[in-house]
Amino acid sequence: MALIVQKFGGTSVGDLERIRNVAGRVARTFDEGNDVVVILSAMSGETDRLLCMAEKITEFPDKREIDVLVSTGEQVTVSLLSITLQSMGYKARSMLGFQAEILTDSKFTKARILDIKASRIKGFLAEKNIVIVAGFQGIDAKGDITTLGRGGSDTSAVAIAASLRADRCDIFTDVDGIYTADPNICSKARKLKRISYDEMLEMASLGAKVLQIRSVEFAKKYDVPVQVRSSFSEEEGTMVVYEDANMEKVVVAGVTHNKNEARITLSKVPDRPGIAMQILEPIAEAGIGVDMIIQNTRAGNMTDLTFTVPKSDFEAAMAIERKIAEKIGAAEVVGDKNIAKVSVVGVGMRSHSGVASKMFSALAAENINILMISTSEIRISCVIEEKYTELAVRTLHTAFNLDEPV
Amino acid sequence: MALIVQKFGGTSVGDLERIRNVAGRVARTFDEGNDVVVILSAMSGETDRLLCMAEKITEFPDKREIDVLVSTGEQVTVSLLSITLQSMGYKARSMLGFQAEILTDSKFTKARILDIKASRIKGFLAEKNIVIVAGFQGIDAKGDITTLGRGGSDTSAVAIAASLRADRCDIFTDVDGIYTADPNICSKARKLKRISYDEMLEMASLGAKVLQIRSVEFAKKYDVPVQVRSSFSEEEGTMVVYEDANMEKVVVAGVTHNKNEARITLSKVPDRPGIAMQILEPIAEAGIGVDMIIQNTRAGNMTDLTFTVPKSDFEAAMAIERKIAEKIGAAEVVGDKNIAKVSVVGVGMRSHSGVASKMFSALAAENINILMISTSEIRISCVIEEKYTELAVRTLHTAFNLDEPV
Repeated sequence: MALIVQKFGGTSVGDLERIRNVAGRVARTFDEGNDVVVILSAMSGETDRLLCMAEKITEFPDKREIDVLVSTGEQVTVSLLSITLQSMGYKARSMLGFQAEILTDSKFTKARILDIKASRIKGFLAEKNIVIVAGFQGIDAKGDITTLGRGGSDTSAVAIAASLRADRCDIFTDVDGIYTADPNICSKARKLKRISYDEMLEMASLGAKVLQIRSVEFAKKYDVPVQVRSSFSEEEGTMVVYEDANMEKVVVAGVTHNKNEARITLSKVPDRPGIAMQILEPIAEAGIGVDMIIQNTRAGNMTDLTFTVPKSDFEAAMAIERKIAEKIGAAEVVGDKNIAKVSVVGVGMRSHSGVASKMFSALAAENINILMISTSEIRISCVIEEKYTELAVRTLHTAFNLDEPV
Repeated sequence: MALIVQKFGGTSVGDLERIRNVAGRVARTFDEGNDVVVILSAMSGETDRLLCMAEKITEFPDKREIDVLVSTGEQVTVSLLSITLQSMGYKARSMLGFQAEILTDSKFTKARILDIKASRIKGFLAEKNIVIVAGFQGIDAKGDITTLGRGGSDTSAVAIAASLRADRCDIFTDVDGIYTADPNICSKARKLKRISYDEMLEMASLGAKVLQIRSVEFAKKYDVPVQVRSSFSEEEGTMVVYEDANMEKVVVAGVTHNKNEARITLSKVPDRPGIAMQILEPIAEAGIGVDMIIQNTRAGNMTDLTFTVPKSDFEAAMAIERKIAEKIGAAEVVGDKNIAKVSVVGVGMRSHSGVASKMFSALAAENINILMISTSEIRISCVIEEKYTELAVRTLHTAFNLDEPV
């Protein structure tokens, strides 16, 4: 007998029919002799519907009230799943964030979990209930409702699994696991049986939007084995776990790509201390996130500074930089939306050299020009022209021996 | 400066436009220098929409889960009103049942309020917030969400007013006060400036569905002055207060009618001890409420027993009684759906005699036959043929000098 936490996202509970499917899957896990705690998101579209009402009232609604409003979405799904399980003859109990004592800080709409008491969850489990907890929501020290930000139900699930010392946390989603590359553009992509927390973190931040990044950080910190699997099939998914010796043997675990960034270059910038700050601070102040930053030294006292921003913020960032270029005396501002970032990720890189040169030569062999490079301990990312994205992913997938099962 | 509690029903918060109207009214009360606590219902239709989902899953959904589900309705409206008031420049804070510490028993879907701590409400008021509390909902000793039954937001409002020792509790509804009779059938009906708790209780139970009966009991018990007034006009409404000497001078405060009952008679019933119980117990067991009961003695060891039930339960009650009649040897079961009940209500009856005879003679003068009679200390009710309802109401209104302002 094990204690298993199962999290289902918005599409999995999108209507009563789908809630019935979820109930069936939960019931099977219970029938196999396990204790089961279920974490649910709101019905898909519901959070946006509620937000839309608030935004019709005012452009910047108060975040405390937004959390009161949107937390109703999960409240509806947990009660409906509980009723469905009961109608099938199972004992079930729904719980909201405040009842499960999911204590967070007071940063409304993006709160962080501080502690979970879980005593009532344990009490309900002891009475052989299937316990269904509203994801995405918590309560702060003053008793106000908070929410954890987009994808926060993943974090709810992992945090509850951690506090209950669950044997496993299953994240049911609309993909059936983590792949060596996006199967839509790389037909040889394979589902990974296992991946390390660190690799998952890099993949998540690179655009493989399967798990909220914070949930992976939580899983790593508290050593919660997480399984990413499909709501719509019985297949086993991908286990996200601590790295082990076997994982290190594989140099590259996967290839990811991201087409959602754009590049901005200020050329012939007077090269003096503090110039990078002058260029980038106004971008941060406008709430625009910068990913990669590269500065090249030119001949003379000139430098070129290039950085990437989300495509959706491109026009705003360009407008800001045109003003700055004038102020600091830069020659010109050049923007490029037709870029993509391809990355190779793997904990094996820590103990293997030559990964970067292998990556560069593989891309060069296909005449793919590299525009920018950035690296971490377990990742190498190259910015290339967008039109080469699919070719680059397939090329790297082959070059790093990912086409064949290990 | 006063502390005023204002309650708005579902039609008053039915959409964002109407919520804006409510915000305007609340803001005016605040601007006049008052502390304001607002109690809201769910948007009209929302509670039914949620219940309908649960009933699609199973005929008898668990009541604990129903309360989790339907309490989201008020959660949405309180956050939206708070956001609206803030967008107008006011400080506002929403609160749910558990946050306002509205402690109830654990009778889900029809819980009763046991206590209200209200310390957080007071804290928010001290910071000059307009406080907006979700009506209809509370929390039991175990921390489970409860709801107070249909119309429960009235009771929330009065109970919160009592716990805060508010100067007044305004119930905003779609009528503008309590009338001496239904203005739709009696053109001379006048709005009452004041009415006593006891009269209001009688009127409420007689079908003037303006206030939930329990809210009036609460107001009486804790001496909360309640004003019933319209959401859609600025006019003063009717104050519901303790009776005073002036009220006793008026013999009859109002005339009410109720067309929602039906009459069932078992004739030639063997007259022996326990026979009434045999006839009525199965009706109670079927969950059907009986209003009036009358037993006439016939010649011989025979009796006739007549009672009234809600029209919606008439067929079910008839089926039950036909079986019983056979079992106990009654001659026949006669049903009549074409009846109505007209009543006169007034605390002045306590000190004035002759009210009943005046009522009977007024009806007789119009050739209206009385089918049943029942009385309380401050009420006399007659069941008559339904077709005479409007005539009877107008006749009694004139007979008891209600046509002219006092």
